[in-house]
Amino acid sequence: MVKVSRVVKDAGMPTEPYAVADLQADLRAFRDARDWGKFHDPKSLVLALVGEVGELAELFQWVPADEARAEFSSGQRQVRAGEEMADVFIYLLNLADVLDIDLLDAARQKLAAAAERFPESRHQGVAPHKS
Amino acid sequence: MVKVSRVVKDAGMPTEPYAVADLQADLRAFRDARDWGKFHDPKSLVLALVGEVGELAELFQWVPADEARAEFSSGQRQVRAGEEMADVFIYLLNLADVLDIDLLDAARQKLAAAAERFPESRHQGVAPHKS
Amino acid sequence: MVKVSRVVKDAGMPTEPYAVADLQADLRAFRDARDWGKFHDPKSLVLALVGEVGELAELFQWVPADEARAEFSSGQRQVRAGEEMADVFIYLLNLADVLDIDLLDAARQKLAAAAERFPESRHQGVAPHKS
Amino acid sequence: MVKVSRVVKDAGMPTEPYAVADLQADLRAFRDARDWGKFHDPKSLVLALVGEVGELAELFQWVPADEARAEFSSGQRQVRAGEEMADVFIYLLNLADVLDIDLLDAARQKLAAAAERFPESRHQGVAPHKS
Repeated sequence: MVKVSRVVKDAGMPTEPYAVADLQADLRAFRDARDWGKFHDPKSLVLALVGEVGELAELFQWVPADEARAEFSSGQRQVRAGEEMADVFIYLLNLADVLDIDLLDAARQKLAAAAERFPESRHQGVAPHKS
Repeated sequence: MVKVSRVVKDAGMPTEPYAVADLQADLRAFRDARDWGKFHDPKSLVLALVGEVGELAELFQWVPADEARAEFSSGQRQVRAGEEMADVFIYLLNLADVLDIDLLDAARQKLAAAAERFPESRHQGVAPHKS
Repeated sequence: MVKVSRVVKDAGMPTEPYAVADLQADLRAFRDARDWGKFHDPKSLVLALVGEVGELAELFQWVPADEARAEFSSGQRQVRAGEEMADVFIYLLNLADVLDIDLLDAARQKLAAAAERFPESRHQGVAPHKS
Repeated sequence: MVKVSRVVKDAGMPTEPYAVADLQADLRAFRDARDWGKFHDPKSLVLALVGEVGELAELFQWVPADEARAEFSSGQRQVRAGEEMADVFIYLLNLADVLDIDLLDAARQKLAAAAERFPESRHQGVAPHKS
């Protein structure tokens, strides 16, 4: 069946788009092929994620705030931002994997909770308060 | 049309699973309904992401490294970790949105590049060196 | 003796100012009085530091970049920023303690190296490049 | 008087040790000699600090938790940790400078508050709860 499926794909039939579940499967295969699972305890993965967040922050640090969007939404700087964001995403998924968390579903639920917590009528154009 | 669509869903017809693109659309709607787009410049979004990474780190900070996986892969602690990871993911997608970056595709490409950079044969069980 | 010492201070005799070494001694005493040294392995301390950096970032995230300095250099917001910065500093010193690092001396050396690396003549008003 | 003081120093008389205030003065001079003050708005400085925290986290990420202290408290790895910690400290002081915050005093006050909040008797060997 796998073989048939490949033939069908090769024949140009519509195929499923690459999804988070596919990326997670690929990350798992990448990790296991190198026997790197032993490094993937949660504290190490959070530190690795922090490292990538640091590289993302460095890209933007000295760019004037009102120029950052234009500077990083095309060309080489967009590519660089995409690479660092990809790294953050990858470690987030690696962490989700070892903790058996469905990241997409967790985000959907968090957004639904935020929609209740911040009613549109009361939060028009006002940033949530942090104190 | 919305109504019909819902009826079809209620009738148990196969529906598409929730995907990253759906979450991104929902995040955009959430943001725009509150007129919060004006806060979403890249530097502010990276700082917001850092705030959520900090909350994630706090969950794990005092847990012994070799107990963290077991402690956070079920029950209330798993829920908490999922919530903080969801927040990190949400800000990552908000940033991807303003920079017009396809996060899933960027991650797939980054993983392909890592597979070339770290051949299985030479990296069996050895962590990539950071100096 | 404590009383006498206070009287002397009140009388305006010159006293030593509070220095980093004093803070480090106080942090060590605070930690040891609670038997918290067992939590202070480097990875845990870095995660704790990340947690505090996250709280610092949250303070600034939605404030317009060109208003942040004025907003946070007086009043209650200055106090809040000082508290979060103090927490970052405290974990940095706790880490310095377990690694036997002289933070002040390390910073002095780093600054001297930066002065050589970025000659004034070639870096007038130009941010160091990050790529 | 300055001249006399220098002569005395040159003669090998005991001099004041390098203090935080000296480092802050040196940082200010370094910044102003390069006209870099214009980059030092708070959000940019926090992002720069995050970048350095990321580099610090990377040093430790794949080291087993129970080996990290021994690995990083001597030799080249201690030097590397000291360099990254120095960078974090430097950006913290740059931020303190623009916000007119006395970092050492803020830390002393924070520690005094923590001592009240976590009485020794009730927190023997128990990590502060984060939820």
